[in-house]
Amino acid sequence: MIGESPFAVEPWSVREQSVDLDRLGVSESVFTLANGHIGLRGNLDEGEPHGLPGTYLNSFCELRPLPYAEGGYGYPESGQAIVNVTNGKLIRLLVDDEPLDVRYGQVVEHERVLDFRSGLLTRDLHWVSPAGKPVRLRTERLVSLVQRSIAAISYTVTAGDQPVQLVVQSELFANEDLPAAEDDPRIEAALARPLVPEVHTDETTGATLLHSLRGTGLRMAAAMDHDVHGPAGTETHSNSSENIGRTTVICRLAPGRSLRIVKYLAYGWSSRRSMPALNDQVRAALTAARYTGWDGLLDEQRAYLDDFWASADVEVDGDAQLQQAVRFGLFHVLQAGARAEGRAIPAKGLSGPGYDGHTFWDTETFVLPMLSHTVPDAAAHALRWRLETLPLALDRARQLGFEGAAFPWRTIRGQECSGYWPAGTAALHVNADIADAVLRHVGATGDDEFARTVGLELLTATARLWRSVGHHDGDGGFRIDGVTGPDEYSAIADNNLFTNLMAQRNLRGAADACRRYPDEAAELGVDPEEIASWADAADAMVLPFDAKRGVHAQSENFTEHAIWDFDGTPPEKYPLLLHFPYLDLYRKQVVKQADLVLAMQLCPEAFTPEQKQRNFAYYEQITVRDSSLSAATQGVMAAETGHLGLAYEYLCETGMLDLHDLAGNTEHGLHVAALSGVWSGVVAGFGGMRHLEAGLSFAPRLPEELSRIAFMIRWRGRRLRVEVHPGEARYRLLDGADLELLHHGERLTVGKAEVTAGIPAFAPVEPVRQPVGREPLVRRLRAGGSS
Amino acid sequence: MIGESPFAVEPWSVREQSVDLDRLGVSESVFTLANGHIGLRGNLDEGEPHGLPGTYLNSFCELRPLPYAEGGYGYPESGQAIVNVTNGKLIRLLVDDEPLDVRYGQVVEHERVLDFRSGLLTRDLHWVSPAGKPVRLRTERLVSLVQRSIAAISYTVTAGDQPVQLVVQSELFANEDLPAAEDDPRIEAALARPLVPEVHTDETTGATLLHSLRGTGLRMAAAMDHDVHGPAGTETHSNSSENIGRTTVICRLAPGRSLRIVKYLAYGWSSRRSMPALNDQVRAALTAARYTGWDGLLDEQRAYLDDFWASADVEVDGDAQLQQAVRFGLFHVLQAGARAEGRAIPAKGLSGPGYDGHTFWDTETFVLPMLSHTVPDAAAHALRWRLETLPLALDRARQLGFEGAAFPWRTIRGQECSGYWPAGTAALHVNADIADAVLRHVGATGDDEFARTVGLELLTATARLWRSVGHHDGDGGFRIDGVTGPDEYSAIADNNLFTNLMAQRNLRGAADACRRYPDEAAELGVDPEEIASWADAADAMVLPFDAKRGVHAQSENFTEHAIWDFDGTPPEKYPLLLHFPYLDLYRKQVVKQADLVLAMQLCPEAFTPEQKQRNFAYYEQITVRDSSLSAATQGVMAAETGHLGLAYEYLCETGMLDLHDLAGNTEHGLHVAALSGVWSGVVAGFGGMRHLEAGLSFAPRLPEELSRIAFMIRWRGRRLRVEVHPGEARYRLLDGADLELLHHGERLTVGKAEVTAGIPAFAPVEPVRQPVGREPLVRRLRAGGSS
Repeated sequence: MIGESPFAVEPWSVREQSVDLDRLGVSESVFTLANGHIGLRGNLDEGEPHGLPGTYLNSFCELRPLPYAEGGYGYPESGQAIVNVTNGKLIRLLVDDEPLDVRYGQVVEHERVLDFRSGLLTRDLHWVSPAGKPVRLRTERLVSLVQRSIAAISYTVTAGDQPVQLVVQSELFANEDLPAAEDDPRIEAALARPLVPEVHTDETTGATLLHSLRGTGLRMAAAMDHDVHGPAGTETHSNSSENIGRTTVICRLAPGRSLRIVKYLAYGWSSRRSMPALNDQVRAALTAARYTGWDGLLDEQRAYLDDFWASADVEVDGDAQLQQAVRFGLFHVLQAGARAEGRAIPAKGLSGPGYDGHTFWDTETFVLPMLSHTVPDAAAHALRWRLETLPLALDRARQLGFEGAAFPWRTIRGQECSGYWPAGTAALHVNADIADAVLRHVGATGDDEFARTVGLELLTATARLWRSVGHHDGDGGFRIDGVTGPDEYSAIADNNLFTNLMAQRNLRGAADACRRYPDEAAELGVDPEEIASWADAADAMVLPFDAKRGVHAQSENFTEHAIWDFDGTPPEKYPLLLHFPYLDLYRKQVVKQADLVLAMQLCPEAFTPEQKQRNFAYYEQITVRDSSLSAATQGVMAAETGHLGLAYEYLCETGMLDLHDLAGNTEHGLHVAALSGVWSGVVAGFGGMRHLEAGLSFAPRLPEELSRIAFMIRWRGRRLRVEVHPGEARYRLLDGADLELLHHGERLTVGKAEVTAGIPAFAPVEPVRQPVGREPLVRRLRAGGSS
Repeated sequence: MIGESPFAVEPWSVREQSVDLDRLGVSESVFTLANGHIGLRGNLDEGEPHGLPGTYLNSFCELRPLPYAEGGYGYPESGQAIVNVTNGKLIRLLVDDEPLDVRYGQVVEHERVLDFRSGLLTRDLHWVSPAGKPVRLRTERLVSLVQRSIAAISYTVTAGDQPVQLVVQSELFANEDLPAAEDDPRIEAALARPLVPEVHTDETTGATLLHSLRGTGLRMAAAMDHDVHGPAGTETHSNSSENIGRTTVICRLAPGRSLRIVKYLAYGWSSRRSMPALNDQVRAALTAARYTGWDGLLDEQRAYLDDFWASADVEVDGDAQLQQAVRFGLFHVLQAGARAEGRAIPAKGLSGPGYDGHTFWDTETFVLPMLSHTVPDAAAHALRWRLETLPLALDRARQLGFEGAAFPWRTIRGQECSGYWPAGTAALHVNADIADAVLRHVGATGDDEFARTVGLELLTATARLWRSVGHHDGDGGFRIDGVTGPDEYSAIADNNLFTNLMAQRNLRGAADACRRYPDEAAELGVDPEEIASWADAADAMVLPFDAKRGVHAQSENFTEHAIWDFDGTPPEKYPLLLHFPYLDLYRKQVVKQADLVLAMQLCPEAFTPEQKQRNFAYYEQITVRDSSLSAATQGVMAAETGHLGLAYEYLCETGMLDLHDLAGNTEHGLHVAALSGVWSGVVAGFGGMRHLEAGLSFAPRLPEELSRIAFMIRWRGRRLRVEVHPGEARYRLLDGADLELLHHGERLTVGKAEVTAGIPAFAPVEPVRQPVGREPLVRRLRAGGSS
């Protein structure tokens, strides 16, 4: 149990039982509907009040200048920022002569439900106008996972015990005013009125608006059409102007009678297609959606999600909040990645403007593990997008003085958009993370075609990078100096252990792939000498170990640095980066987010069990978890090193991050990597899943707080179900050929019949501790403190 | 010999024999007149053509925003930029109806001479107007070293063989248009029209303009008055408007007759004094100047300079260009520092807007050594200015999380103005450099009052910084991690040897001073425990040494880094920072400017002679000298390690830097630190002067190219003259009590009578080499290549 939830705790949905105007921004993010292609924040239908209006199209972004007080060679001059596009969710209602607005009149009942199985956001409002006229509103909203350019809204108003006259204005609204961004370096300035009107048209029941962007030149179209079901005398007409398309419906309702409108919305955008082509594209999509009809869209959505849950569901017994959180995470990660197809999966999905809508290494390292094992097509698409941007990464490497490819630290369309190189461009590990995602995906799917085409080229380009970034020192060791690892409270360090281990994997993976596909490798110009040089570098990789303390060093000399004064740092000074200079942070032992600990999760065979325990204990006491990326990893490694209660707490923290707004910034969008981390916390944490040299491996073990977990993963054409009970684990294939796997190091052959295996006891471990005040947040929530 | 000079080679002057319109910016810098308080670039009297108009008042600066693509805690939001103030040099001339302009008509003769002994800039122009009217113009300009707010110009026009009518317009001109700044991160944007008009007044023969600045609120006044000597019928009147004060003189000249005008200029500025007070101040200064008269000003100037040269002159036999360069350097350093009094000595002096007019560590490390030994009052003033800014430095240290004081990396008025912290704020060595300048100044002057007041407080505040920045590691070593040393091609490194050695000196110097002045130390809150902790830290200082290679490491692990691909770097790729990213530079062994080599000069007793030789050879081959601060230091250490020919080349390079515009940016101002470096090259290089524990020490030794050098230094109330011949050195006191010093390690007592000492032979040394193409620039000049 985590503490009181702002939402009702239900296994398959998130229910808000009254609207909290102070937390609208959070609920808008939580209630986001998206399909990876378009995303609608959970704004109220009538548009106001709002926390932050938001409608996003994947990769539809504008340029923004990146200014520097002192410039430098290779600094990106232009950034990219996701644009809040034409708002098609908007449906305003006039009841007699008063606009429906929950800030006025009386809200008798207001409930919103996001249902993970139907994919619908439902709203029920019972409202009495200031003049005393009661109406009931029920809206259902969906963003189709099947027809990727389509969203639809079913909007029903029912008169109370008095007759009312209604005017409904359903709109397309471009260039909304946005609240000013906060003064926080992590929240980038939103762009003001970026959409240039191009064309606007209207018909009786709908309208279309076309706009373009000045900087990127991208063009977009938004179109709507409506089915109106009202009493006799209901009138419908539409008009349009540069930034507004409006369909107006007028009727009188007798007491108890209803007006129902189904709004169909279509979005299209392109950097190449002409305005007429885009216009036709959205009108065609709209025609198809109307042809499918509201009920048809619902059925499609349900079928798509049934299929997803049938291969991806994770069951957790013993903690209803965690059960809800796990499915909430799965659902939103699916929404972020399902239909991205050729575009990136951003750190916030399409749920908000945080981080300017950029994608980071998060996707490969935290999101793709889940997708490769549950929706492998989505993972493959995400990596194909990286391959499409390879020419930009090759150019960037040249600019930086490297061979191979240097993928951007943060981007929307593939260009480096980082304005602070020590924690951006210098974090070259993103390249190894992409390679790692390729290797994991190929391992999980056995997709030979992907490996031969997408995989080989990505592995080769990134291996070339590492070979040129590192060098053999006088003793033959292969060093990677002056780069930044995952921990953003250190930078420009020598031999970051995470980077070096991931580069080692990258080099070996590339060598293996080139040996496996010699013809394709030859086409990429790879010869045996180059392969040998990769293998040599990997074998000679420097892995800093502090023999005096018996722990690995996050980077060379790291453990010699002064330890941060945690006892002298009060709670209000976190996150540290907002209260201390990088100069202070970088020079001391203080870890923002799992770095070496993440290396232990991702490269489990590079450490002995004893090293993992010692390393975990050492880094746990200096890790402040100022990043949402950290708790999941700490939880996974806590589980592996025997700290099951702590692992459970970290899993709860990860699961509650957005539902409880633990980081205080959910309003700017969901933390998609953390949402994926909930899945990892269960599957890699309590399930102990790892890809080892010897094959797929599990080491399941439950914390006291949970009585059972069950999950499924896809593995090379199979679906494997794993169920863990306190004393035993049960394995079973839902389909596919028998599979040999490892259970706590023992080989086990699993087929359609359930195989049960005992769970060995764990020798008791010394408790570990965190910096004061940086214990898992759930402890504080349980104690009734504020987040 | 260095190669053909753009100026005539004369021992006591710089003579330009014709005007080169393409190099006007350079000659304007070279012909700058200044006194540390006000500075006038050598613009032509008539204002146009110009390279860059420039009139500066020390510390009269405006704020400029420092933008960041991604901000961070503790980043300065506001910078400071020196302002081009009201131009009082301007005297336009109309000959009949044609303006004198060297771009039109015929320039028969045009010569300008800067004389180091008179302190005058003289111009002789024989010009024939487009209509064929010949006139001769002779102007003399001075900026008084005695009356620090005064400049004056003697302006004489003589008619040729035809009668002419002349109109002279002598002006005060505010808010001149400036050429756009270049796209180079080192040249900051000039400020456009920063002066806000406040008051303008005029009298018959003069005018006054008062302006203020919007951001800093600083106020300034400029006033002029004129003595006019013309033929009968000469008329004079003045007028003024917001940005122009103008005195107009009209006359007709018979052939061979002259009009002479003496223009007196006064400047005043303040952050506190009111406009009326400022107005009165400049009018009073002007009155005093007129009372002194032109000849009086000349006499004062000559007397001041005679005194200077009598204690500071450096004679060099064997290379006339070098002789000129040495005196050019001495003269301009004097001009930069003579009357700064309570304000900083900027990196460009008052000769141009380069580096925004900021002062850096250059002043303490390169400029003050010369001033402490020649014009000690100026050095004391510069350090008093630091003490005045101590409250800001204490605040900044708090912001950075440190104890004690953190002086700014770059500033005009004491606030940190660095917009790139890894090469700015992180270069904490500036604090030890200030302490070093204090210790050197006290050593050279024996000024007990200074040591007890200014010195003690600066040493204490900086020692406290180091004690809090460093920490004792597990083995007891005192480490200083994550800071940046002098070499700007490395940053945020552990245990930079220069920083650690200078911090060690700082800690010991503070401990000594507090023991010497216990009462004053107690007032600063210093107790014996604190003193002991400084001494302990100094004794335990980590000094990285690479036993494998037998050399010190610039910082920990530095010698393990990859060596820059010098052979693959063509000449046009220098300076490297404009063609390669910091990411690439920082991770490799490539040194922008002497760092460890400077440590060997400043901390000679921390190294054995063998270590110095090995270190010098090692770092010489990776130092690219992309900074003007480097050659002088490399020259000094080349001399000490027996590479006398190389030392001579580096001395020539330093001496020619501005006269030959070797760095291509002299137009933005003179390189004052390099100009001081010429003095160091002679005195510390071929003279081998060091302050050792055992006392003042010399190890003179001449290169083949020079037949004799002679110099004087002030030492604790004495003037010591040192003359070096190929086989022997001669020491003699010009005044003061007998002095014991070291000559090549042997004790020698020197009095008024000359003492001669032989120079021991140096065992031949292996030649050292530089990166390809980065040999001393003079080799290229001699070979006839371009700079």
